[in-house]
Amino acid sequence: MPSGLRGARIAVVGAGLIGVGWAALFLHHGADVALWDPDGAARETARTRMAKPLADLRDLDDSLDDSTCRPGALVVCDDLGTAVSDAVLIQENAPESIPLKHDLFREIEAHARPSALLASSTSAFTWTDLAPALKDPRRLVTAHPFNPPHLVPLVEIYGPDDTRVSHAETLYRAAGRVPVRLRKDAPGHIANRLASALWREAVHIVADGIADVEAVDAALVNGPGFRWSVLGVHMGYHLGGGSGGLSAYLDHLGPSQQRRWSSLGHPSLTPEVCKALIEGVAQEAAGRDILALEAARDTALIAALKARKGTPVV
Amino acid sequence: MPSGLRGARIAVVGAGLIGVGWAALFLHHGADVALWDPDGAARETARTRMAKPLADLRDLDDSLDDSTCRPGALVVCDDLGTAVSDAVLIQENAPESIPLKHDLFREIEAHARPSALLASSTSAFTWTDLAPALKDPRRLVTAHPFNPPHLVPLVEIYGPDDTRVSHAETLYRAAGRVPVRLRKDAPGHIANRLASALWREAVHIVADGIADVEAVDAALVNGPGFRWSVLGVHMGYHLGGGSGGLSAYLDHLGPSQQRRWSSLGHPSLTPEVCKALIEGVAQEAAGRDILALEAARDTALIAALKARKGTPVV
Repeated sequence: MPSGLRGARIAVVGAGLIGVGWAALFLHHGADVALWDPDGAARETARTRMAKPLADLRDLDDSLDDSTCRPGALVVCDDLGTAVSDAVLIQENAPESIPLKHDLFREIEAHARPSALLASSTSAFTWTDLAPALKDPRRLVTAHPFNPPHLVPLVEIYGPDDTRVSHAETLYRAAGRVPVRLRKDAPGHIANRLASALWREAVHIVADGIADVEAVDAALVNGPGFRWSVLGVHMGYHLGGGSGGLSAYLDHLGPSQQRRWSSLGHPSLTPEVCKALIEGVAQEAAGRDILALEAARDTALIAALKARKGTPVV
Repeated sequence: MPSGLRGARIAVVGAGLIGVGWAALFLHHGADVALWDPDGAARETARTRMAKPLADLRDLDDSLDDSTCRPGALVVCDDLGTAVSDAVLIQENAPESIPLKHDLFREIEAHARPSALLASSTSAFTWTDLAPALKDPRRLVTAHPFNPPHLVPLVEIYGPDDTRVSHAETLYRAAGRVPVRLRKDAPGHIANRLASALWREAVHIVADGIADVEAVDAALVNGPGFRWSVLGVHMGYHLGGGSGGLSAYLDHLGPSQQRRWSSLGHPSLTPEVCKALIEGVAQEAAGRDILALEAARDTALIAALKARKGTPVV
C-alpha cells in the first residue's frame, strides 16, 4: 500500500499547511515530490514541517520493515517551472486568490508535460472559477482535501473530463485517499457545504441560548459526529426507518423533518455572537493552545484510522 | 466502571429498540432493571433482543473477569406500577405520541417513589410538551440518547431543576454515557437539530445533481464526519484560524461563511427527490439488508469506541 506511487513524480505547489501535508502523503506512498513555494522561508522550513506528518504516516503503517515501502525523494525547487516539468500530477495549494491561482496555472501549463494532471486543492473556489486561466481547461480538476490532509481520507474531485477524473481517482487512491466524485461543480464541493450547514445550526444553538459551545461540540463528538465517522447521513436515515428502510422513514417522518428544517436557525455572526463563540471555545480549550489541540486531534485521528483498518466503515 | 450502577434499581418503560438498548446498558453497568411494555410479545422477546447489545457491551469491556463487574438482574414486569415502584430512575421509551406519553407519565408518577427521577428518551418532543402530565413537572427531565443507545455515548438532558439534572448526569455517567446539558428546552435538542441541518444540505446536494447519495455519504464518513468523531465543529473552526484561532477565523472567513449559509439549499421531499434518495441508498447498500447494515455499523462503532479508550477525543 505505501508504495502505491513508487516511481511517480508529483509536484506540490505551495508549502503551507495543506501543501506540506500533501507532500508528506505522496512521499510516504513512494512518489518523488518536487515542492515549490514563492516564499524562500517557506521552502527552507518545509522539510522540518514535514517531519510530523511523515512520522504520523509511519505510525499508521505497520509494514515499514518492508524495504519496498521506503518513502520517495523530496526536492525543494527554487523555481516553479523546474518543479512541475516532469510531474504526472501537479497539486496546487496557493492562498485563496483568483488572480494568484490564475497566474500560477498559466505558468504551470506552460511548463507541465501535456499529459500531466493539474489539480487544485481550492476550498473557496470552483473549477469554473479557475478554468479560464488555462488554454486546455479540461486538464484541470479540483481535488479538495480535508484538513489535516495526510490523516483525513477524503479528496473531493470535480472536472469535466471523465477520463481525467478517473485518472485522478487512481492517483489519490494510490496515496491511500478515498476519492469522491462530484457530478456538478459547486461552491464548497460536498464536505464544506455539509460542514457549513451544520455549523450554521451549531452557531444558532449558541446564539439562541439552547446550549454552550462546549456542550454543542460534546454532543456532536459523542453523538451524530461519532456515528457519521462510520455511517453516512442518508444511510443513517435508512437504518432509522426500521425494516422498511429509508422509504418507510420518508413516509412516516419525512413531513416532520421538513417541519424541523423550517424551524432551523438563521444566525448572524454579530459581534455578540462572535464573542460568545470565541469565549465558548476558549472555555472548551481549557488552556490548551492551538498546537496542543492540533496534536490531540491528530493523535485521536490516528487512533480512529487504526480502528478502521481492522474494521471497515459501513 | 461497569459496576457504576451496582445496587441501583432502574425502570425501563417500553421494550422497543431504544428501551432494550437502555436496559442492556443499565444492566451491564450493574443496575437491576425492571422492564415493562404494554405489549406481551415485546415483553416476551425483550430478553432475546437484549442478547446482542449485552454481548457488544461485554466486548467493549476488558475487565469482565472481575467478579464485581457482573451485570445486574433483569425483571420483566407485567404491570407498569410494579416496574416503577422501587426505581431511582424511570426511563420512558414509548412511541412518539403526546397523549400516550402523558398517560404513561401520569401512571408513573402515581406509582414512583417521590425521590425517583423521571426521564423521557423522547426525540420528537420537548420537556414543555411532556410536563403538563405531571403534578410535579420538575421531577421530569428529557434524556435523549442517540441510536444505538448502548454504543453512542451521548445523552442530551434538559430539565428546569438543576439539582435533578445534575443527578441525572451522575446516573448516566455511571452508565458510561457522556451527558450533555441543554440550557433551554428546544425541539430536536442539540444532536437532531445538527443532524437535520446537515441532512437538509445532503438532500439538496442530491436533489440539485451535485453528487450521488453514495458520494455524499462517502464524503461525510471520510471527511467532516470522521473529523467530528474526535473534534467538535466550533473547535474545528478554532483550529481553522491558525495561530489566531476562532477569532482570526471569524475575522477572515466569517463573511464568506455567512455568504455560504445563504447559498445553502432548501430542498423539498418531493416524490422525485424521495425516489432519488431511496434508489441512491439501495445502491450504497449494495444488496445488504437492514440487519446486515446494522451489524456492520455496530462492529465499526465498537472498533471506534475501543480506539477512544486508548486515546481520548479532543
